[in-house]
Amino acid sequence: MQFARVLGTVVATVKHESLVGVRLMAIQPEDEAGNADGDVIVAADPLQSGPGDLVEWTTGREAALALPDTYSPVDCAVVRIVDAVHSDRRLVGGRP
Amino acid sequence: MQFARVLGTVVATVKHESLVGVRLMAIQPEDEAGNADGDVIVAADPLQSGPGDLVEWTTGREAALALPDTYSPVDCAVVRIVDAVHSDRRLVGGRP
Amino acid sequence: MQFARVLGTVVATVKHESLVGVRLMAIQPEDEAGNADGDVIVAADPLQSGPGDLVEWTTGREAALALPDTYSPVDCAVVRIVDAVHSDRRLVGGRP
Amino acid sequence: MQFARVLGTVVATVKHESLVGVRLMAIQPEDEAGNADGDVIVAADPLQSGPGDLVEWTTGREAALALPDTYSPVDCAVVRIVDAVHSDRRLVGGRP
Amino acid sequence: MQFARVLGTVVATVKHESLVGVRLMAIQPEDEAGNADGDVIVAADPLQSGPGDLVEWTTGREAALALPDTYSPVDCAVVRIVDAVHSDRRLVGGRP
Repeated sequence: MQFARVLGTVVATVKHESLVGVRLMAIQPEDEAGNADGDVIVAADPLQSGPGDLVEWTTGREAALALPDTYSPVDCAVVRIVDAVHSDRRLVGGRP
Repeated sequence: MQFARVLGTVVATVKHESLVGVRLMAIQPEDEAGNADGDVIVAADPLQSGPGDLVEWTTGREAALALPDTYSPVDCAVVRIVDAVHSDRRLVGGRP
Repeated sequence: MQFARVLGTVVATVKHESLVGVRLMAIQPEDEAGNADGDVIVAADPLQSGPGDLVEWTTGREAALALPDTYSPVDCAVVRIVDAVHSDRRLVGGRP
Repeated sequence: MQFARVLGTVVATVKHESLVGVRLMAIQPEDEAGNADGDVIVAADPLQSGPGDLVEWTTGREAALALPDTYSPVDCAVVRIVDAVHSDRRLVGGRP
Repeated sequence: MQFARVLGTVVATVKHESLVGVRLMAIQPEDEAGNADGDVIVAADPLQSGPGDLVEWTTGREAALALPDTYSPVDCAVVRIVDAVHSDRRLVGGRP
């Protein structure tokens, strides 16, 4: 899983039927130091994260396993809201 | 999922039998600011999108889950036509 | 799916048993303008494509769905031989 | 699989229910010479690795196959703690 | 599939139980001209390849399909030992 910062919602009227009722968020991938890293992507969010949250997101076929309908055509999902990151027993990141 | 702009159709006579009747579109991946980002790719389109639409596309095994035959050898599909993108509760992208 | 130009065959005597009888081609990925884009890769070819053909190839687990034995350890397959690519209703690529 | 050095734990209170009780570690991908290579990522760890260990990690849908619940939305897992790496019958890496 | 040159074995005592008895090799990905291309990776090898062999390797969920236990958390496997590569009917690579 990689880190990302939640930006906000992405709204769509026309969508695949399996995505009706699925919350989709724009997230900015970040490196471990909190710098933006790559383009903004759209992730399914079963956790009700909000703008500014640091999250872990998962990619690929396994992302849909985070949703009620695990056969959705979704390749990115938020799976944890991060509290703290440790490196060699020191705190290096997490909730500001 | 990532953002892309729909360009047009891609026509092929010789194809895998599971792709007969599947609409395939050339799409240009874009970053969140609307700049082209990477090569043009070919995506299955169950939504009847048209040239100029901003869409979300999904990649990998889960792309075929957007099609009637979910065992098609397809690794890219359009899953939503985007109306609006919000960041920190402000509108930053979407339908022009 | 991405575009590629077919180069020729790749021959191997020692192989996984599920790959006996599977035609494998060296293909050169290309961007939409016909420029080489990335390394030559090896793709399963159920379509009998030939050197010089412009094809679409699919990657990942779904590539094997193009083969008779869908449980082959194959991560790349040719799924369509392209005739024409349109952008905004204009012809921009395809069969030379 | 790729090499990585284990950094430490990543703590999260809000998470997908399938991830309760799963140990998740921050790991730094490394090349074969032991240089950091890419961003720190978060991997499920069924092996009880510790900070400083050289590990192999696997990515994608198959990562969850290392967990008791193989339908977890996990795309990265530690699968081996490396003792030694040989190249052309010479020892080139491993446990310091 | 991509090309790689086999380097040697990677030894690990602590490993996921599904990997007991699986031969894992360090391989150096190569481009079509035989130049090293990217970091050394670790691949499952059901073919008994040896140092110096030119091989094709497959990635992702489908790699484990090359193993006796197809539910192993393995994302890279050697699937063919290459004899010859042809481009436009000329021999351009293969066994030295």
